[in-house]
Amino acid sequence: MRILGIDPGLQTTGFGVIDADGPRLSYVASGTIKTSAVATGDLPARLKIIFDGIREVTARYEPQCAAVEIVFVNVNPQSTLLLGQARGAALTALVSKDLPVSEYTALQMKKAIVGHGHAKKEQIQAMIKRLLNLPGEPGKDAADALGLAIMHAHARVSFEAMSKSTTLQRRQHAQFKGGRTY
Amino acid sequence: MRILGIDPGLQTTGFGVIDADGPRLSYVASGTIKTSAVATGDLPARLKIIFDGIREVTARYEPQCAAVEIVFVNVNPQSTLLLGQARGAALTALVSKDLPVSEYTALQMKKAIVGHGHAKKEQIQAMIKRLLNLPGEPGKDAADALGLAIMHAHARVSFEAMSKSTTLQRRQHAQFKGGRTY
Repeated sequence: MRILGIDPGLQTTGFGVIDADGPRLSYVASGTIKTSAVATGDLPARLKIIFDGIREVTARYEPQCAAVEIVFVNVNPQSTLLLGQARGAALTALVSKDLPVSEYTALQMKKAIVGHGHAKKEQIQAMIKRLLNLPGEPGKDAADALGLAIMHAHARVSFEAMSKSTTLQRRQHAQFKGGRTY
Repeated sequence: MRILGIDPGLQTTGFGVIDADGPRLSYVASGTIKTSAVATGDLPARLKIIFDGIREVTARYEPQCAAVEIVFVNVNPQSTLLLGQARGAALTALVSKDLPVSEYTALQMKKAIVGHGHAKKEQIQAMIKRLLNLPGEPGKDAADALGLAIMHAHARVSFEAMSKSTTLQRRQHAQFKGGRTY
């Protein structure tokens, strides 16, 4: 199963692709899509860069599913609106390629990768390097995206293990899991 | 010049297509794209309906440019985030077809169509019926979208008239116009 993780943002969108063979994970690719090439005020052009960038990544690496970070409302409502539009462009790129999308919060991802929700960016980067046996640390946005992909791989493995047990346990697991899967 | 107006929303997105030959306007089509066929919580599926719907409209009517309503922050930040994502999907559909996009506020549109910014939905619908010589009133969301298309046609005519006069006047016009054009 090839999984694409996406950490959406209007300025920088991180992406990370991994292969998950049961509990075994291997790195495929990661990077960032930056919208700084166009004017800050030109929102449609910035959304097009995000949309085209993610479609290019999906065309090149052919993931079978995607995990996207759930974004939160900002103290500044105008920033919330802009981030919403960026995330809308990212999700649209994925569904336009008919990819099933799961959503996780940053808290869920940090707990899955580092073990607690208060992890700093540097701790996530160091842990991603170890988990995927990388020669160096990925960038911050790419590390978050790889973290989301790994989080989704773990959730899938747990879910498959649970599927073999009783319905009651499966139901409890679904409540515990918390991730919104479509 | 064929113009597509879009009034974006997560539940209902209005669209309206007009032909503008200088000051003469004629109706081509209008309607709404509704996302009620999928579950409310399934955001990626709802964004896909908006994206596919707008692309279908552009494929069928082949507009040369688009005018999209500028949305505002809601009292509920979560609603702001959802509306942002819906608008992101709508803008993405337009730029994925390489359509130039202009943006106008509801206030600008109401002033252009009814003459003042406090116009009620019913007044806009009645005025759209008159301006486009329609046999009946369009629905509320379609009327708003047609209003945006007419607003853009007016802005274009004024801009062309101004282009023939002095640079100073053109600059004043640009300040007056207010619409963000990309």
